Amino acid sequence: MRIIVIGFGVIGQNFTKLLLSKSVDLYNQYGMKPRIVACVDSKGSVINQSGIDLKKLLDIKKNRQTVGEYNLHQTQQDVLQIIESVDAEVVLELTPTNLENGEPGLSHIITAMKSGKNVITVNKGPLSVAFPSLIELAKFNGIFFRFSGTVGGGTPILEFAKRCLKGDRIVSFRGILNGTTNYILSKMEERLSFTEALKDAQIRGYAETAPALDIEGLDAAAKLVIMSNWLMDMKVTLEDVERIGISKVTTNDVIDSEKRGNSIKLIASCENKNLIVKPLEVSKLDPICVNGTLNAVTFSLEYSGEQTIIGRGAGGIETASAVLRDMIEIRENIVTV
Amino acid sequence: MRIIVIGFGVIGQNFTKLLLSKSVDLYNQYGMKPRIVACVDSKGSVINQSGIDLKKLLDIKKNRQTVGEYNLHQTQQDVLQIIESVDAEVVLELTPTNLENGEPGLSHIITAMKSGKNVITVNKGPLSVAFPSLIELAKFNGIFFRFSGTVGGGTPILEFAKRCLKGDRIVSFRGILNGTTNYILSKMEERLSFTEALKDAQIRGYAETAPALDIEGLDAAAKLVIMSNWLMDMKVTLEDVERIGISKVTTNDVIDSEKRGNSIKLIASCENKNLIVKPLEVSKLDPICVNGTLNAVTFSLEYSGEQTIIGRGAGGIETASAVLRDMIEIRENIVTV
Repeated sequence: MRIIVIGFGVIGQNFTKLLLSKSVDLYNQYGMKPRIVACVDSKGSVINQSGIDLKKLLDIKKNRQTVGEYNLHQTQQDVLQIIESVDAEVVLELTPTNLENGEPGLSHIITAMKSGKNVITVNKGPLSVAFPSLIELAKFNGIFFRFSGTVGGGTPILEFAKRCLKGDRIVSFRGILNGTTNYILSKMEERLSFTEALKDAQIRGYAETAPALDIEGLDAAAKLVIMSNWLMDMKVTLEDVERIGISKVTTNDVIDSEKRGNSIKLIASCENKNLIVKPLEVSKLDPICVNGTLNAVTFSLEYSGEQTIIGRGAGGIETASAVLRDMIEIRENIVTV
Repeated sequence: MRIIVIGFGVIGQNFTKLLLSKSVDLYNQYGMKPRIVACVDSKGSVINQSGIDLKKLLDIKKNRQTVGEYNLHQTQQDVLQIIESVDAEVVLELTPTNLENGEPGLSHIITAMKSGKNVITVNKGPLSVAFPSLIELAKFNGIFFRFSGTVGGGTPILEFAKRCLKGDRIVSFRGILNGTTNYILSKMEERLSFTEALKDAQIRGYAETAPALDIEGLDAAAKLVIMSNWLMDMKVTLEDVERIGISKVTTNDVIDSEKRGNSIKLIASCENKNLIVKPLEVSKLDPICVNGTLNAVTFSLEYSGEQTIIGRGAGGIETASAVLRDMIEIRENIVTV
């Protein structure tokens, strides 16, 4: 299986490490011999049709900041041209999320699909602005499109709902889809103010220096859009989500809700086709009421009741493991001897 | 798809109702037209190769206590003979659990496998006494063997671990696998004594009048055996589980543990190949710390951290939905055009 990697940040590098450490397992368990044949980061690229040396790739990235230094004399090519022209079964789109217009990820994915390559992404941008059309394009071109890592990091929330609940029907779902805001709200239960809790999250690397994406509920909304399209057969984008962030939540609100045996959580919900992200009081006895950076989703099913899945919603190695899972699934689908 | 149903209690009847209410969905979504061609309960049997009328079957069972009354002049046959001789793709083994020697379910399953029929069961007995040999027999005969409903009722704990965690490795797991004991322990947190809590559980129908199977941890141990064989590639039976029930837990123990921010839970765990069922203190902040009749399992994974799945662990319609899920999966596996 030949792979083109677009974007070589934390997740791309962790994925490469995973390939290195799991190569024997992957061959023995799934008959897979994955090779990275092209790798592009923001400053350069490297192409090698017979497979890039993964250890060298990681070293070069670490020591010289760009994979473009892998071959001293390699001519740098345009990324869309690489996606189009390099022979490969899968394109991994791992560039940073842009919820405005999904770019550059959106163009990468479209180009990959049009050239008949399967696509795996962890980039919420393209999916939250253009999910319905991307699914259509994937179907039209007969390729597999997977994006496990966009929701729940390494926790297989999408697979759980799609594969484990067959024969039943998801009536509605709600969840904590953003670890950063959940960490901040948990800290506020320990009597920190919103500003202090945010600062603490930034020090620990959970929140960005420009944290609006998390705080204003945009990240949770993007995940809600992905889940609603994929699991509920809706055709929605980010604009269809009613959204309130957590910046107005005060320590007093948190204390008051505790008196009622509740916690305030940023809840994303899909109920009766309404998509909402907003701070809500949740009973501390509700399985969804998890603390710290955890994510949790409860699905309400027609026959088998409520089912909750909980796990870490982020992390480089965790999300890289979601990419690997997608790759194994695609491999099992395309190789049906 | 032709089905032989052995055992027609709560789950069998709920499964039949599910077939009736979902027949259009099953055809549209999965191209399935399931027919029950034989049905056996403890007092009689009915066979109809072109498909038994499901509504009539349910009525007869309700009004005359046995499906043997379906055809007035039908000769009653031996159950093993029916399993062997009636043409069908799937045998549903739904007789009551017997953890002593697995019978009569064990013989039903073996006979079905030997006659080349796929098997779905919710019966923990055969699996906890003979899991390794049943898997071998299934492989030898080239049939599918599924048992989702044996663990977690309608909550797809086995599928989650088997299908959603690909590319990663389960290092260990632990969970609350028995709803009855969890209900009793939850009630003891409300200051009921063990005896009072047990009585309350019996009144609500959560506990049997002879509740040893639950109280002594045997039910949890049986589920632990199934999970350890299926998910961890171990070859174990009920005898390999170290087991302590909850009958010795006092209200004082519960109150003391609460002072430490913990709850006492009957925890089944598989760690370093050691299988243990016993009451343990669990932090109230741990996602596994669920109340009432809920079940919860936390899987510790090599790369993606801890993942927890929570849901109702029992219930007729819930468990019937697990049987349907197994049936859809078998159907998708045997029809690969």
